[in-house]
Formats: sequence, C-alpha cells, structure tokens
Amino acid sequence: MSKENGQCSSCSEMKEGTCGGEKCSPPPKLHPGGQSKIGRVIAVMSGKGGVGKSSVTALMAVNLKRMGYKVGILDADITGPSIPKMFGVKRVPQSRGLLLPAQSRTGISIMSLNLLLEREDEPVIWRGPIISGAVQQFWTDVNWGELDYLLLDMPPGTGDVPLTVLQQIPVDGIVVVTSPQDLAVMVVKKAVRMAGIMEAHLLGFVQNMAYATCPKCGEKFEIFGKALQKGDTLDGLPVLEVLPIDQELTRLCDTGLVEDTTTKAFEDIPKLMKVNTQVS
Amino acid sequence: MSKENGQCSSCSEMKEGTCGGEKCSPPPKLHPGGQSKIGRVIAVMSGKGGVGKSSVTALMAVNLKRMGYKVGILDADITGPSIPKMFGVKRVPQSRGLLLPAQSRTGISIMSLNLLLEREDEPVIWRGPIISGAVQQFWTDVNWGELDYLLLDMPPGTGDVPLTVLQQIPVDGIVVVTSPQDLAVMVVKKAVRMAGIMEAHLLGFVQNMAYATCPKCGEKFEIFGKALQKGDTLDGLPVLEVLPIDQELTRLCDTGLVEDTTTKAFEDIPKLMKVNTQVS
Repeated sequence: MSKENGQCSSCSEMKEGTCGGEKCSPPPKLHPGGQSKIGRVIAVMSGKGGVGKSSVTALMAVNLKRMGYKVGILDADITGPSIPKMFGVKRVPQSRGLLLPAQSRTGISIMSLNLLLEREDEPVIWRGPIISGAVQQFWTDVNWGELDYLLLDMPPGTGDVPLTVLQQIPVDGIVVVTSPQDLAVMVVKKAVRMAGIMEAHLLGFVQNMAYATCPKCGEKFEIFGKALQKGDTLDGLPVLEVLPIDQELTRLCDTGLVEDTTTKAFEDIPKLMKVNTQVS
Repeated sequence: MSKENGQCSSCSEMKEGTCGGEKCSPPPKLHPGGQSKIGRVIAVMSGKGGVGKSSVTALMAVNLKRMGYKVGILDADITGPSIPKMFGVKRVPQSRGLLLPAQSRTGISIMSLNLLLEREDEPVIWRGPIISGAVQQFWTDVNWGELDYLLLDMPPGTGDVPLTVLQQIPVDGIVVVTSPQDLAVMVVKKAVRMAGIMEAHLLGFVQNMAYATCPKCGEKFEIFGKALQKGDTLDGLPVLEVLPIDQELTRLCDTGLVEDTTTKAFEDIPKLMKVNTQVS
C-alpha cells in the first residue's frame, strides 16, 4: 500500500484506499472458466472511443482464424458492444452451469453482453464495479474450451474495465489502436501510460482510418491527418498496421459479414506473441 | 425501491441495491457551485465513442457564443477529455476555495480534468464512482458565474457518468450524436433508451461524419453509410444537424483553434431550449 508518485503501488489506484479492494491489496489473477485452455490473451485497447478497436479486433480474429488458429473474442465493451453485430451472432447457446460462447460462421468463439440481451439496443445502465464484474465473469464463468488466441475488445477510457482486465486477467500483449488525429493520439497515450504503469506488455500501435479513397477519381487522401507507415515508431512503440477507412469493411461490419473481408493484416501476431507459427 | 422490468425504478440501476446510494434511494439534484447562475444545461451524449461528441459540443459552444450568449463547457469525459486541446486552454486560473473555469480566447468558460493535470497525456486510472465524483465536483465545486448555456460533453457508454449526470445535474435537454454507421446507431440507441428511462428531455440527433469531400475532384461521398438530412427523423427524434467530415475543422481542433471555425450550426438551439433569442 505504499504510494509512488501519488499512486498506490499495490493496485494502480490513484488514491490509496479508493479501489474498493479488500484492504486495498492487489486482486489476484483469475482462472478462466471450466476446463478452458487459452494460449495467448491479446487486449485491443485505445483509451479513445471510435478509433476502430472492434474492427481491429474482428480483423485480427478473422486473419488468425484463416491462419488455422482457434480464436475467441471476449467483448469487454459492456455498455457499447459491437462484436456480435459485426459477426452476425445474436445469442449464446443454451447451457447449464458455465456460459458457452456463441460460434460465428467460421467458428470464432464470441462472448458479449449483447448476446445476453433481448434487444441489441437495450442499454445496460450499470455503475463501473458492476460493469467490470461482468467482464470478470466473461473470463471466469465462460467455458471457452481450447483456444490459441483470446482477443479482448476493450472499451474506451482508463477506468474500471481496463483496470480490472490488466489486474485480473493474464493479458500477454496489448495492441493499441489510434487514428491519425492529434486529439485522438493524446487520449490514446493515456492508455499507453496506464499499460506502462500496470507493467503490461505493449505490442505496438495500429493506426486506423489512415486515409480514404475517393470512389469517383480514386484519389487516396489523409482525411484525419498525417498517416504513418507500417514499421514506423509512435510513442516509442512499433506501428504494426496502418489501415484505411474501408467502405467495404464498414458495410461488412454493419451487415454481420466481417468474416467475408478480403483485408489481410496481422500476419506478424504469432511471431510477436512468440507462438510457434506451426498451427495447432 | 420497487422493480419495474427488472430495473429498480428509484434509481435506474438494473439491480436493486447495487447502486451504492444510501438505502438505494434516488440521489438529490445538486446545486451548482457558489453563486453560479446557469440558464440552460445541455448534455451532448452518444453512447458510442468517437462519433464527435466533443466537436459537436465545441461547435455548439462557438456558435452560441457568436449569437451573444454566455457559454460554458463542462467536460464530463474524465478519462478521455478532448475539449481543452480543441480550445487551446491548458490550466484553470489560481483560486481559493471553489475552482474557476478556464477562459477560452473568445470567453467560453471551460472545466475539464485535463486542466488539472500536469501533462495532457497523463492517465486517470480511476474506478467509476471516483470518475463520477469528479463530474459532480465540476458542477458543485466550480464557480461558473453567470451562464446562459452550460454544455456537458459526455463520455461514451451508459455507465457511471451519464447515470450520475442524469440523476444529479438538472439537465434541460440532450443532444444525441451519431455517425451514419448502423453499428454506431445501434449503440447510440442504447443511450437514447437510457435517457428515456431516466425521463430526460431528448432534443434530437446530430449526424456527424455524414460525408467526406475529395480534395482532388471535389466529389462528396457517403463514407460511413447513408447520410440523413436536417429535419429527418431517426428513432422518433428530429435530426437537428447533419455535419460532414471536415478536414479544416479537424485541423482547427488539433491545433486549439476551434473558435476559428466557419461552420455555422445549431442556430435553432435557443428556440428548442425555449430561451428568448433576445440575448442576455
């Protein structure tokens, strides 16, 4: 419970005693539900909303699946879940005891709060501790089975959910999503600092919405500011992918057909995660 | 504390007794700090991140100011604040007792967590109740002085901050921001439902990022899906404004010069808010 730089070192809460944890001690890492065997956990994070965390998560899942890996997505955005709509899944299967993830058309395992609601636009009006409790349960009370990769689609901000995830779920790597806007980068850096404080392993950045293409003349233009190149460095981290605004991808995401995307990306993830590229 | 549709009617918490309120009773509306006299409070809300709540808030503030009104912005996005950077303000003035808002170049009063931090990219790693406590304090512990309009720039989601704001701050109207993407609209509808459950007054929608303009051939194209028209209806509410992706506005927001925008919008707000358009 010692404080360093005004911050309680035991749990990364800015004020000692405010985290609500028992005696303010760091909460333990949790085990995934049932007999789940999960190879690598990757959190897709940003700090900023609307930069494309969910599309990046979906693209990464689709591409890892195509490489032959067993892939799951834990949608940790409890109040604004996008994953089920992108994959066209609506409900989890009936089960006794532990929850079972829904299966997408190509066999990606998905758990999201929207799979538990009657209506997809029903709000969950919950305070933070209840929201992060739901994320914990998506880890501890879901039988994920055997997965090579579980991707966590994180909500914006540096509040309850990222705090709980980084404290209690054994995350192997974090991919940080940003757009080219200075304003977005400023907020995204907050998430990077948070991950640093919590000693999480940052893999690098994805710059999304880097450019748009005019459907009439084919001009590619940087619509939100200066685009980066794959391999560049931002805030001391490598840029893993640079993705355009892709109207076809938007359409596929809106219609539940993201698995039909032709966008190739994230081939380097297995190497970065030090997973034998010989698929399981 | 009766439950309706599984929801505690007294405080809109989904589970009775989980809101942390004393005996789970609805918390009282709060008074603004000191001698503040605030005419109308408008919350700019979305549910979805990255659709442009902050640019819409800034544009509305700039345009109301130009009409001659006294305007303030309470940046309720504690973990991802964008307002100070857009207006090029960095610190609040020194004060004893109550906090004083920063003043923008044209005299808009601004309070934001980033005005209280040493570094703009420093994260606030706080749990929800602490985050909503900060928003409460921006209302109760800030001497706003006399304002015709206080605009609240809300964070994404339907969690602690919107819940606290709609329970405890006397909000006169809500402007809901969306983008044309179906995916965004689905999440935005959650915020609309939340406002309905909490009996807040919804003014209407702003559709942001409706189209882009090619810098080479001048083609206007619907980059994120079908654009609406001002005056259309969405989810039973009027569409108040339809705004394009505006590269000049992006540049102004990134460089602290949003007050230089030439975009005219929100002229109808005083009429909607039933404020005499004779300025104060």
